[in-house]
Amino acid sequence: MINTELESDLQLKWSRIQHAMQQNNFEGCLLTVDVNLYYTTGKVFSGYIYFPASGNPLFFIKRPNGVDGNNIYYIRKPEQIPDILSTLGIKKPEKLLLEGDELPYNEYMRLLKILAPQETGNATTLIRSLRAIKTPWEISQFRQAARAHEDTYRQIPSCFHSGMTDLELQIEIEKRMRQNGSFGLFRAFGSNMDIFMGSILAGENAETPSAFDFALGGAGIHPSVPLGANGTLLKEGTAIMVDMAGNYTAYMTDMTRVYSVGTLPDLAYKAHQVALDIQNEIMNYAKPGVPCSEVYGLAAKMAENEHLAPYFMGTKQQAKFVGHGVGIQINELPVFTPRSKEILEPNMVFALEPKFVIPGVGAVGIENTFLVTDDTIEKITRFEENIIQLH
Amino acid sequence: MINTELESDLQLKWSRIQHAMQQNNFEGCLLTVDVNLYYTTGKVFSGYIYFPASGNPLFFIKRPNGVDGNNIYYIRKPEQIPDILSTLGIKKPEKLLLEGDELPYNEYMRLLKILAPQETGNATTLIRSLRAIKTPWEISQFRQAARAHEDTYRQIPSCFHSGMTDLELQIEIEKRMRQNGSFGLFRAFGSNMDIFMGSILAGENAETPSAFDFALGGAGIHPSVPLGANGTLLKEGTAIMVDMAGNYTAYMTDMTRVYSVGTLPDLAYKAHQVALDIQNEIMNYAKPGVPCSEVYGLAAKMAENEHLAPYFMGTKQQAKFVGHGVGIQINELPVFTPRSKEILEPNMVFALEPKFVIPGVGAVGIENTFLVTDDTIEKITRFEENIIQLH
Repeated sequence: MINTELESDLQLKWSRIQHAMQQNNFEGCLLTVDVNLYYTTGKVFSGYIYFPASGNPLFFIKRPNGVDGNNIYYIRKPEQIPDILSTLGIKKPEKLLLEGDELPYNEYMRLLKILAPQETGNATTLIRSLRAIKTPWEISQFRQAARAHEDTYRQIPSCFHSGMTDLELQIEIEKRMRQNGSFGLFRAFGSNMDIFMGSILAGENAETPSAFDFALGGAGIHPSVPLGANGTLLKEGTAIMVDMAGNYTAYMTDMTRVYSVGTLPDLAYKAHQVALDIQNEIMNYAKPGVPCSEVYGLAAKMAENEHLAPYFMGTKQQAKFVGHGVGIQINELPVFTPRSKEILEPNMVFALEPKFVIPGVGAVGIENTFLVTDDTIEKITRFEENIIQLH
Repeated sequence: MINTELESDLQLKWSRIQHAMQQNNFEGCLLTVDVNLYYTTGKVFSGYIYFPASGNPLFFIKRPNGVDGNNIYYIRKPEQIPDILSTLGIKKPEKLLLEGDELPYNEYMRLLKILAPQETGNATTLIRSLRAIKTPWEISQFRQAARAHEDTYRQIPSCFHSGMTDLELQIEIEKRMRQNGSFGLFRAFGSNMDIFMGSILAGENAETPSAFDFALGGAGIHPSVPLGANGTLLKEGTAIMVDMAGNYTAYMTDMTRVYSVGTLPDLAYKAHQVALDIQNEIMNYAKPGVPCSEVYGLAAKMAENEHLAPYFMGTKQQAKFVGHGVGIQINELPVFTPRSKEILEPNMVFALEPKFVIPGVGAVGIENTFLVTDDTIEKITRFEENIIQLH
């Protein structure tokens, strides 16, 4: 990472944040959640970044020691912030943005007491909407993640041996991921979105309803981590859906491919082809200006036309979305649901994941990460899309 | 897991929660954070558990479909809760506990609006204090985790080969962990406590200050995940501190061991021995009734007496604690800091981790998980404690 490149990326983000603040008459924006700190500083630390409506942001850092840079103020606690602002001649904001969907209640109340604004707004909403439109540097990070993601998927056939379980296969894939540079950590928005490195679903386990907002479920290996692989034997006729994380840069790609042990029932191949058709149809249709709800509608309609609605995005429990923004977290904006309000805009990056669950067989379908360009969408994750047979 | 055993464990927890509610005149307690749901139901789901001050708790579930049991009510949104309470003849609580340190501000405010109590209390504080005192079933889970944790550490010498980096070693250990039953997921309290499967520190990287509340730091492999291994070559004379997660049951053990490539400078062996002496001294001293602050004081004093204070719990940045409760999250109560208010009680389970950072060499010291018994503390994690030389 060339520092000047990151610097100018941060400048761009800062100007977008301050522009949005000015449009809504906000005088201050205080961020402290890890993903928002990374977004605005290129670092994760314990502390805060404070944006006035114009001028340079201030960094209030608790840990680690020794961070270099301009406008850095070391603090032990946020109660020290007002005095520092005062010393700098910056008045306390009357209208302040705080991370309302991310900060725990008591932390929010503490900051509210300290800064005593007359009015507050939701920094989560603002920053998530800005984060949905990726910068050139961020887009380069997705492209880099995609190459590593593809490399890992290319190694999957060599991870397989006859008689193994879904979990054993996942462990081999996790190792390849890490060797290919995966950070391990897999960030999601929402306090109850527990996930580890991704998910593999095979056989009957693919029908197990999810406790989370993820597309599909799986029982997992313990009631405290109810997601994904559960020790299912990968026997002849099993579809293996691999949806492992693309966490190779801070900007994650999302990609799903289906592998099979031997051959699958016709219904599985048919449904897989319909998923590919849905993807291709959306690639023809999606571009700036298209409502995300219409993208969902198109996918659901095609599934229905092919009489596959009972299998679309699950069976016993069906996810009501077909795609989602990706970035520092796996579930960013926009979302592609029947009621999405978002409209596609250039430089959004999202995952599209039409999937079908075939009872007793597993899950089939496709997921790729796309960039919205000026007049279409570009597939960032590129890898064999047909079902890949394992030997 | 035998269901009746889990059932009676849950009954025990429920009675403790309701007893504490009654003592403080709380009429209701609504929990929704994953770890608190697991604690009180043995499951993770999307929804809520509601405790009246007496009588059976109610389960309001959004996802997954098909959960069996008594007092289960499926909801789409929490706004449906009051009507269900009303139908059941349960009046809305005037004094309500909500997870103030865990719920995002807007979720908290939403629940507050829905249930409109006259007064609220912090369920986080209450449940964390109850969670600090482990039940017999929970203690059995720690013992089970410890055996797997030890098995993994026993395999570490076979993971090493000359010329590898800390990260390469970590990847091999992660694989053994998963093969030994690690869930992967590593839960911590606090929204900015990003960690993946644990930490390995070697050589100069051990001095890198942490951005988090973990004992030691390390640069990590990317600014977005600044913790632990950073690609340091494991050359002759390097100390390798392995502090990988004990996430083999929902109740995690915490254990650190030190491995070396060849032999280390005398200072490293001396400091390691002092860490063992600190542990042994605390094992002689700690029992119910002992203040956690005194345990910290004892450790810090011994480090100082041996002229090792400049290396104790870091160099460039020193952690001001020497231990912490463990459980569903890695950082539970009590904490062992100079200002801890907690007093040791029977059935607390905690990790004790006197460690020293030796500049240019790495970190040395020890960490084990202990159970407070009626008259002493019992070491749960049992494995070779001297520095283990790798070949």
